[in-house]
Amino acid sequence: MPTVLAALPVRLDPPPRLLCGPGPSNVAPPVLAAMQRPMLGHLDPGYHGILDDVTAMLRAAFGARDGLAIALQATGSSGMEAALSNLLEPGDTTIVAVNGFFGRRMAAMARRHGAQVVEVEAGWGEAVSNDALLAAHDRHPRARLIGVVHGETSTGVEHPLAELGAALRDRDTDTLLLADCVTTLGGVALDVAEWNVDVAYSCTQKCLGAPPGLSPLVVSERAMARVRARTVPVPFSLDLQLLEAYWVTRPTTYHHTAPVLMVYALHEALRLVLQEGLAERWRRHEDAGAHLRRALAHRGLSLIADPDHQLAPLAAVHVPDGVDGRRVQERMLREHGIEIGGGLGPQAPPMWRIGLMGENATTEIADRVTAALDAVLEREIAPAAA
Amino acid sequence: MPTVLAALPVRLDPPPRLLCGPGPSNVAPPVLAAMQRPMLGHLDPGYHGILDDVTAMLRAAFGARDGLAIALQATGSSGMEAALSNLLEPGDTTIVAVNGFFGRRMAAMARRHGAQVVEVEAGWGEAVSNDALLAAHDRHPRARLIGVVHGETSTGVEHPLAELGAALRDRDTDTLLLADCVTTLGGVALDVAEWNVDVAYSCTQKCLGAPPGLSPLVVSERAMARVRARTVPVPFSLDLQLLEAYWVTRPTTYHHTAPVLMVYALHEALRLVLQEGLAERWRRHEDAGAHLRRALAHRGLSLIADPDHQLAPLAAVHVPDGVDGRRVQERMLREHGIEIGGGLGPQAPPMWRIGLMGENATTEIADRVTAALDAVLEREIAPAAA
Repeated sequence: MPTVLAALPVRLDPPPRLLCGPGPSNVAPPVLAAMQRPMLGHLDPGYHGILDDVTAMLRAAFGARDGLAIALQATGSSGMEAALSNLLEPGDTTIVAVNGFFGRRMAAMARRHGAQVVEVEAGWGEAVSNDALLAAHDRHPRARLIGVVHGETSTGVEHPLAELGAALRDRDTDTLLLADCVTTLGGVALDVAEWNVDVAYSCTQKCLGAPPGLSPLVVSERAMARVRARTVPVPFSLDLQLLEAYWVTRPTTYHHTAPVLMVYALHEALRLVLQEGLAERWRRHEDAGAHLRRALAHRGLSLIADPDHQLAPLAAVHVPDGVDGRRVQERMLREHGIEIGGGLGPQAPPMWRIGLMGENATTEIADRVTAALDAVLEREIAPAAA
Repeated sequence: MPTVLAALPVRLDPPPRLLCGPGPSNVAPPVLAAMQRPMLGHLDPGYHGILDDVTAMLRAAFGARDGLAIALQATGSSGMEAALSNLLEPGDTTIVAVNGFFGRRMAAMARRHGAQVVEVEAGWGEAVSNDALLAAHDRHPRARLIGVVHGETSTGVEHPLAELGAALRDRDTDTLLLADCVTTLGGVALDVAEWNVDVAYSCTQKCLGAPPGLSPLVVSERAMARVRARTVPVPFSLDLQLLEAYWVTRPTTYHHTAPVLMVYALHEALRLVLQEGLAERWRRHEDAGAHLRRALAHRGLSLIADPDHQLAPLAAVHVPDGVDGRRVQERMLREHGIEIGGGLGPQAPPMWRIGLMGENATTEIADRVTAALDAVLEREIAPAAA
């Protein structure tokens, strides 16, 4: 007989949380409700219509005009890996902008798949300059890909993506532009076709307001042509040609059993995003973020990011000297039920990362977070000063 | 401005379905309810306790005693790829039992990751003989892995896994045993430690009764030692060393944003499985399957699988001559709201695949399916005979 458990775990009873870290954010009630609808099989004709809807809505949300638009059956980091592994072949050169944890991860992942990586770095809290990226492109004009993180979640920095895309279009180059839009899709202005971005991936659990579990991904027709021409195989689970066959050519092909309820959730989340209107939603994120940053400044708290490149939905805040940042996070969680993030990775300076994303991108929620932070900090700073 | 949709898709309103194909099966109501509980962040201390529970319950369900026990943040086919890509290095020899779609996929996936694959085949509906596998092992004693599909979903054949594991133990070999338990975990007797299985993966949406989206995976300590000793990198998303760091060594490491609500669902599904008792649950699947097969035989319908190796939760049924199997499936769905499967892949003979898994493994559900099949077949056969 199999291993016997000492005791059966009790039914889950997690406390309510206001999720104002770098993600996940709280899920909109209609999105949760969508996950309770009758589950269809992944080969049900009705399910195919749902995939078509998701493709159309993803195109609209990303601003994609052609090519592939799918939600990868895995979380955001798999979206990064799908993009890099399908677009790069061993020995290819790629230029990667590195100004935080996720740029570093992108560079490491490209290397893992055999690429020669040219890193163009910027300091913590700075944007990588497009001039530096274009200079790297001058030195490596045959680079297959330039990869940038649109919203660097580890520092709250937004990359000037539109300008980079325009500059590459002017160069009439074959080098493709890849953007990590994990923290921007649905919360920050983005228009991949207009901006000349060939490949972009995101997640479901930040500005889109769905639970984590899928990775929305768009690949332009130009980039898909490269994928089809490649000779070295990619991981089966991430193979965009197989995924295209499943999402588009179906029902003759079977690739994986779709995460049906997660797709229902994404369907509803995208509906809500588009119902609100992209421009309105971006403005809401901008307003909530600006409101939060003013409140933080008012309290003498300073931000990691260069103000000229501040990402709207996420503020990375320096922990004041003498304050135990980790303890503040714990008390925010325990005493106020509010999650805020800490620094990501060993290189990170002490920080809090406060995200107002999706449902939570309102000035009211910003006020709740700062009020709780006031209450916690008052007692954190006082004993130390006593 | 981004692409504008012609029209916003309407809110999803899928019809209720009785899911009696090869999976997914219907989700138990308490599992659906678990997905409505407050969502914790993936770095919340409360969430870590949930991961511990899931690990303990997965060990119990698989019968694993040591090593890694996780739910991979992707669907079942990624479990297969995680197992193969981590255990095999380019040039390694692996022996794979091929008697259907999933054995063939396993062989192809091992090749994709650079392995030399020795296929040991059996005909459609037959089990691969353990003697033939052991003879292949005689010829390739240094094979790194023998891979078999415990429950071949494309034909309804169960592999005699316990006997193979025992034979390999007698050989005192370094060759590891890998089992695809996608259609067996929670529905068919399985005890990986007792049976000497080193690596096993499954899915959530069949006999466990959770929605699709995760891949439970256990890897023995002996196999993890091989993983730690490997030199060629594996895909980041599937890297068992990184996943172990996230599931076990946390919270210092960040690998991916966990699909929190899917993990809630799995937590509750595993609780229900263990509360019912594994032996009782296996018996329920056996009883329901036997009941269905008797009813099918009574109607003169014959099965694909060798009766000595019939898989309990899934019957693959020959479509009678003169009947359009595809049309019967469509009518079952449209007129009775019941999903049954068809053949998988171009080599499959005309068949229906009827699964009684998880919640649906009851004689009552078996009767509902056969009654609906009667109603549909009566009208399918009559016009042809007229």
